Amino acid sequence: MLDIESSIEARKIIRQNKYTKQTAGTAARYVQGNVCILPSKYALDFAAFCQKNPKPCPLIGFGTKGDPILQDLGDVDIRTDVPQYRVWKNGECIDEPLDVKSYWNDDLVTFILGCSMSFELPLIEAGIQMPHIKNDTTVPMYRTNIDCEPAGQFSGKLVVSMRPLNAKDAIRSIQISSRFPAVHGAPIHMGNPDEIGIQNIMKPEYGDPPSVPIKNNELPVFWACGVTPQSVLMDSKPDFCITHKPGCMLITDKLNIDLAAL
Amino acid sequence: MLDIESSIEARKIIRQNKYTKQTAGTAARYVQGNVCILPSKYALDFAAFCQKNPKPCPLIGFGTKGDPILQDLGDVDIRTDVPQYRVWKNGECIDEPLDVKSYWNDDLVTFILGCSMSFELPLIEAGIQMPHIKNDTTVPMYRTNIDCEPAGQFSGKLVVSMRPLNAKDAIRSIQISSRFPAVHGAPIHMGNPDEIGIQNIMKPEYGDPPSVPIKNNELPVFWACGVTPQSVLMDSKPDFCITHKPGCMLITDKLNIDLAAL
Repeated sequence: MLDIESSIEARKIIRQNKYTKQTAGTAARYVQGNVCILPSKYALDFAAFCQKNPKPCPLIGFGTKGDPILQDLGDVDIRTDVPQYRVWKNGECIDEPLDVKSYWNDDLVTFILGCSMSFELPLIEAGIQMPHIKNDTTVPMYRTNIDCEPAGQFSGKLVVSMRPLNAKDAIRSIQISSRFPAVHGAPIHMGNPDEIGIQNIMKPEYGDPPSVPIKNNELPVFWACGVTPQSVLMDSKPDFCITHKPGCMLITDKLNIDLAAL
Repeated sequence: MLDIESSIEARKIIRQNKYTKQTAGTAARYVQGNVCILPSKYALDFAAFCQKNPKPCPLIGFGTKGDPILQDLGDVDIRTDVPQYRVWKNGECIDEPLDVKSYWNDDLVTFILGCSMSFELPLIEAGIQMPHIKNDTTVPMYRTNIDCEPAGQFSGKLVVSMRPLNAKDAIRSIQISSRFPAVHGAPIHMGNPDEIGIQNIMKPEYGDPPSVPIKNNELPVFWACGVTPQSVLMDSKPDFCITHKPGCMLITDKLNIDLAAL
């Protein structure tokens, strides 16, 4: 882990390719974002997809066509400021570079989407323990049977992340995450996984399996997940696309607390 | 006033040009929206402008290029379902038709933005009286000296609406409107109008002047206003554009209460 508090310092290190791994816990007071870079012909439909699906796709940054600088998120150059990228052609990952300077062109539009790290810190500060953080694993994520609202060529199933919580913590986590509508907001489901099309809670489609079985006094609580747009993008196979490598997020200068609705 | 509770019935009447006036109070449980229809060459920049300015420009609907149907807001045909429109060429209003069927073409993109009516009802239900509603006038709106975050060719000053409230009601109104981040959310200022560039509180740029002078025990409370995008659009003078006539909003099937963050 890159153990540093300043978002500006963290980006400086990442920009020089001196840190290339996952960003959980780095500059923890600052908003981290999922990255999606698309040719302009797809951009309007993708913007509409985000507007229609604000829980999985909360738009926190929107670049100008051809401009890699995202001024309203800090001194961000999206070509260099993510630890590791994925470059996709027709739905297939063709490269995992440390910067995308050689792939950049003046037709690309950048979208930055909020992520659950922004509400996990307030949950932890409220004394709610999450096993995946305690055990240093990635949160388990599942593809549900819930359809996203389609927009143009973009459509697909909602992906959710799961945290097992006792009833008291589940109630408190609903209150706390509701304060953050700009970063997934309240859970979309809790209890029986089967109701949202999850067959086997021990076999997530993304991330790590739950590190311990869910206890009898715990409810699985499901939040809309920022992996949804990547899953949807891979299904709809745009001819070209750049994303971050999962876990290797963009660290912005926005404070998590500034995303609280109240 | 069109005194009817059902959003579907209200749109039916409006669609037949049987009601052509302002929609305040009509189907009051349902979300009403500001309308902006632009040629596709402007659409991506305008979507970015809305993302960067969520308080004045909360996007609640986003049409597909060329498609006048806005399915996720109800059985909406944006060509006919607004009581009265304004058609603009190069920043000048050239027509105020009752429908825009003759202006529609397959290059147009529709944006629907939330409006303060969605949080005024909860304020009234909490016992907070607003003089402009009591006196059946339009809320006073002012152009501030606060710059919106620019996007592409779109830039301009923030427009705010003002409601004079005593301290107790002002505090409660902050709590209640904070629950509605999707429709302007919390106020952006209260107290001294001069601090945000308002010279004369009795001379608003839009709407009606305050119907009574602000009392000694009252604070003027200022919310970001959905007139901002119209003001910005008129400044940036796109060659073609359609909006609603102020006050004559689109009535959707979305419930106001469903826009509450918690």
